[in-house]
Amino acid sequence: MKNFFKFEPIYQSTKSRARVGRIHTPHGIIDTPNFVAVGTNAAIKALDSVVIDQLEQQLIFCNTYHLIIQPGVDVVKNAGGLHSFMNRQKPIITDSGGFQVFSLAYGSVHDELKSRGTKKLNNTVLKLSEEGVLFRSYKDGSPLLLTPESSIEAQKALGADIIIPLDELPPYHTDKITLKKSLDRTHRWEKRSLDKHLENRQNQALYAVVHGGVDPEFRKQSADYLTQLPFDGFAIGGSFGKTCKEMLTMLDHLMPHLPPDKPNHLLGIGDLNSIEEIVKRGIDTFDSSYPTRCARHGLLFTQAGTHKITQGKHKNNLNAVDPECHCYTCKHYSAAYLHHLFKAHELSGYTLATIHNLHFLIQLVNKLRNKILNGEL
Amino acid sequence: MKNFFKFEPIYQSTKSRARVGRIHTPHGIIDTPNFVAVGTNAAIKALDSVVIDQLEQQLIFCNTYHLIIQPGVDVVKNAGGLHSFMNRQKPIITDSGGFQVFSLAYGSVHDELKSRGTKKLNNTVLKLSEEGVLFRSYKDGSPLLLTPESSIEAQKALGADIIIPLDELPPYHTDKITLKKSLDRTHRWEKRSLDKHLENRQNQALYAVVHGGVDPEFRKQSADYLTQLPFDGFAIGGSFGKTCKEMLTMLDHLMPHLPPDKPNHLLGIGDLNSIEEIVKRGIDTFDSSYPTRCARHGLLFTQAGTHKITQGKHKNNLNAVDPECHCYTCKHYSAAYLHHLFKAHELSGYTLATIHNLHFLIQLVNKLRNKILNGEL
Repeated sequence: MKNFFKFEPIYQSTKSRARVGRIHTPHGIIDTPNFVAVGTNAAIKALDSVVIDQLEQQLIFCNTYHLIIQPGVDVVKNAGGLHSFMNRQKPIITDSGGFQVFSLAYGSVHDELKSRGTKKLNNTVLKLSEEGVLFRSYKDGSPLLLTPESSIEAQKALGADIIIPLDELPPYHTDKITLKKSLDRTHRWEKRSLDKHLENRQNQALYAVVHGGVDPEFRKQSADYLTQLPFDGFAIGGSFGKTCKEMLTMLDHLMPHLPPDKPNHLLGIGDLNSIEEIVKRGIDTFDSSYPTRCARHGLLFTQAGTHKITQGKHKNNLNAVDPECHCYTCKHYSAAYLHHLFKAHELSGYTLATIHNLHFLIQLVNKLRNKILNGEL
Repeated sequence: MKNFFKFEPIYQSTKSRARVGRIHTPHGIIDTPNFVAVGTNAAIKALDSVVIDQLEQQLIFCNTYHLIIQPGVDVVKNAGGLHSFMNRQKPIITDSGGFQVFSLAYGSVHDELKSRGTKKLNNTVLKLSEEGVLFRSYKDGSPLLLTPESSIEAQKALGADIIIPLDELPPYHTDKITLKKSLDRTHRWEKRSLDKHLENRQNQALYAVVHGGVDPEFRKQSADYLTQLPFDGFAIGGSFGKTCKEMLTMLDHLMPHLPPDKPNHLLGIGDLNSIEEIVKRGIDTFDSSYPTRCARHGLLFTQAGTHKITQGKHKNNLNAVDPECHCYTCKHYSAAYLHHLFKAHELSGYTLATIHNLHFLIQLVNKLRNKILNGEL
């Protein structure tokens, strides 16, 4: 492990697998456990980068698939990488692009992970082979080839602090033999990604992606294989099952097989009900577009539950959405004004709601870290 | 004239009617000549009030018609008025609501003022009488009555620093007899508005609206009648003709009939080509949604002309949109990043472009004031 990336464990709870730590990156520290906001197109929706930095959002997640298509990795590379392109000072993580290729092909991400919708690849994936995956751009239909090596190259051009190898996302409804074949291919792809990455680490950390669906044995096999390779951390991907309970059972089986001296990341989970439970299972970071998407739909998080800001009860509510919240939005504007902005479809409503929800998540993980340190979790 | 509102002439050009002054209001000073940004729904589109205050946007224009319908004047009154509702510290001006009632009835505002589109009232105006105008809400179709008195009452509830009496907007294609009838009714409505206003000034200034279309004699009659009444200032409304030239000719005739010791306002004009010309004719303030609307369409104003940010030439442009601009947007982001935000339909692009265009306008009027003071206009 080089100096540019280091996981510093600080405290391990004796009551659960919950732990507090610090990830040191070239763009600063990520306190763990922590929520990772999603900025798919090199932008958190409705916020600019300076505002995100001011919020102390320590890590954001950008999607390589989208950035390959718009603006194209060459544009970002030409600008000096994602940090410089979007003027972000703090850490960034990118994914491989594979998740979007497969999830768009299967229908929506949510449909696939929850085993609803189509079970087969639609025509956006043109060819899936040992080499990689050939797919159609969602923008103009042009064919694009994503291989383990090309994904790493793209992520080298984007220059995030943490990058992720290409994996295959098998459908939830898959027999064991097909799932095993997919797992083995994902492992071969991850090894190729690692080899490519080690040619030029470029001060980036590469996390493996542990697969195996909801099969405890496969998850163990995946962890055992990947943890023997010099990855810098371990992301948990693939299908987590249909329910939160299934996911937690999977984590109960998997987490003891991950090394305590390396950071881990749970891909795509960040709903309010799950956070404390995944943290108890030892998750260090987790990303989700849920808080920002909720914000744009007028769903504001508070200590007293989630408020639908367009409800009539907020029409004359001159208090802040959450009177105890210290965010920019609650400091400056009433629930009545936010209600009006949403009713009038004013863009500033989306911005103010997004600031509030991100602030809420940042406070939530702060509190969870304190709870762990105080031996309460 | 009471203390709460005062026009302070500072310098009268000897080369033109251009002049520099200061309007003192309960919420601070408006340096004139000045551009007034439009925040129809108690919000400048894509910006929140704190940002607008930081931009030093000295006066914003809110539309009573929209606010009557959403959130309703009672909600704003309950919040302590517009300033408190939207958390704005600087001056606000509201209109009577009449302009929107008539212009929506005639088709688009632009169509009507440029004499395109329908020439007759459509069915959104249910009844036009001496009492006032009965119209249908654009939101739910419910009938609403706007009278000179009810408009003043609504604007008392909204509590802007400057308010405007109800007027009738006659179509451009109108014979002289009909135009004269409309003018006379507008004058009666304005007198009723003034009487209502004087019952309780409530620290608000009431500007008259000078009408008469493009008829020099009618404009003079309107000015002569209205300037004999104790209005605090004079707005110029009605049809300005089909072209910028027609408008300037109208101003050439009209402006000598307005009193030099009171401020004036040109309603709905703020395109870049017109600004210097209207300022030369002695206009103190003028409002337009043009700069903010342009911003949301990716049209960014610079010293070197207007840039369409989505054009391919900006794809790799690592400079600011205007390298000499000191706005928040140009200080933090490249043209390439803005290009990408617009291409990816990211909301933050609209915010950053709006900040830039408003900053440009604020700088433009600053420069015009200096030019006048330096005897160059």
